[in-house]
Amino acid sequence: LEEIRTVGNSHWQILDRRLLVDRSPFAKIYDEDVKLTNGETITNFVRVELPPFAIVFALMEDGRVPFVRQYRLGIRAYTLELPAGHLDGEEDALIGAKRELLEETGVEAPDWQFLGKYVMDANRHCGWCYAYLATRGGQVRQPDPGDLGEFAVEFLPFDEVQHALTSGVLISGPTALCAGLALNALSRQKVE
Amino acid sequence: LEEIRTVGNSHWQILDRRLLVDRSPFAKIYDEDVKLTNGETITNFVRVELPPFAIVFALMEDGRVPFVRQYRLGIRAYTLELPAGHLDGEEDALIGAKRELLEETGVEAPDWQFLGKYVMDANRHCGWCYAYLATRGGQVRQPDPGDLGEFAVEFLPFDEVQHALTSGVLISGPTALCAGLALNALSRQKVE
Repeated sequence: LEEIRTVGNSHWQILDRRLLVDRSPFAKIYDEDVKLTNGETITNFVRVELPPFAIVFALMEDGRVPFVRQYRLGIRAYTLELPAGHLDGEEDALIGAKRELLEETGVEAPDWQFLGKYVMDANRHCGWCYAYLATRGGQVRQPDPGDLGEFAVEFLPFDEVQHALTSGVLISGPTALCAGLALNALSRQKVE
Repeated sequence: LEEIRTVGNSHWQILDRRLLVDRSPFAKIYDEDVKLTNGETITNFVRVELPPFAIVFALMEDGRVPFVRQYRLGIRAYTLELPAGHLDGEEDALIGAKRELLEETGVEAPDWQFLGKYVMDANRHCGWCYAYLATRGGQVRQPDPGDLGEFAVEFLPFDEVQHALTSGVLISGPTALCAGLALNALSRQKVE
């Protein structure tokens, strides 16, 4: 079984793990039994493996930013979110980000900046988010999301994105994460 | 069964849901069968209910920000994260945020600003994050996290937080989300 080595000076040992739910490629749920460094044991620690995804804050030449509005079953509501999607298998995250931006919004951009990778739940896993800032974008074709249900692209003027982020409109964690990082990066680049 | 009504002009209907894993109060996993507005049906759509949590970016009087370093089983590694924790039952999010900050870092603060609530996965749920900015904080006692395993508090100078956020050190999604929102809020308040 997997032994954990870390940047710290200790590690937890996985004694056993049991696959509870297999909804590949969307989700795999495990129970794990773990021995801590102090000798204590935890049983049935739930692990939720979700696939990695890319998300994009794309600033267009005309000063707008594409968002998508769609129904989200997890919260039984519509959301306004940055374009995002699961990476296909071993797909490179940047390639996936460009693909999702084009599919969902019809936008392409020449300049891309990686804003980091983030685990959505450090205890449970819940997937890795690869965040990107694209600049000088332009819409080159109609969106073709191919997703389930209703779906609409909305282009927000840059000033309204800042307002949306602070007014509670953007309730998706990955969207607010990526938007916060992008605004932060753009703000520093303007200063320099 | 629950019927979905949304801000949009349509809704999805939950035909059936089955509890697959019950690890209350930490996690409940469901399969849901859903009928879309176009009549199509999805079966076995996985729902991962995780408890709500509060997270705090606390700027202290001395210009530092408390972080916690701890082992995280979800990623088999140590992380540097903002103080955070699950809300107890129906606990008010602000009260929970103050409690977690005090427990994990020994810090109290007089000024609190709500930075929004965010669902960590709009498809699956994965818990709601309540993000806060606290200012003019000070350490009033020793930390008493009471959590499992090793745990250390680290106070980062404010300038280093910005660097940590852009250099890939902060790999926890909720931490990067809250830090990005807080830096954004503090930057705007400085300008005004």
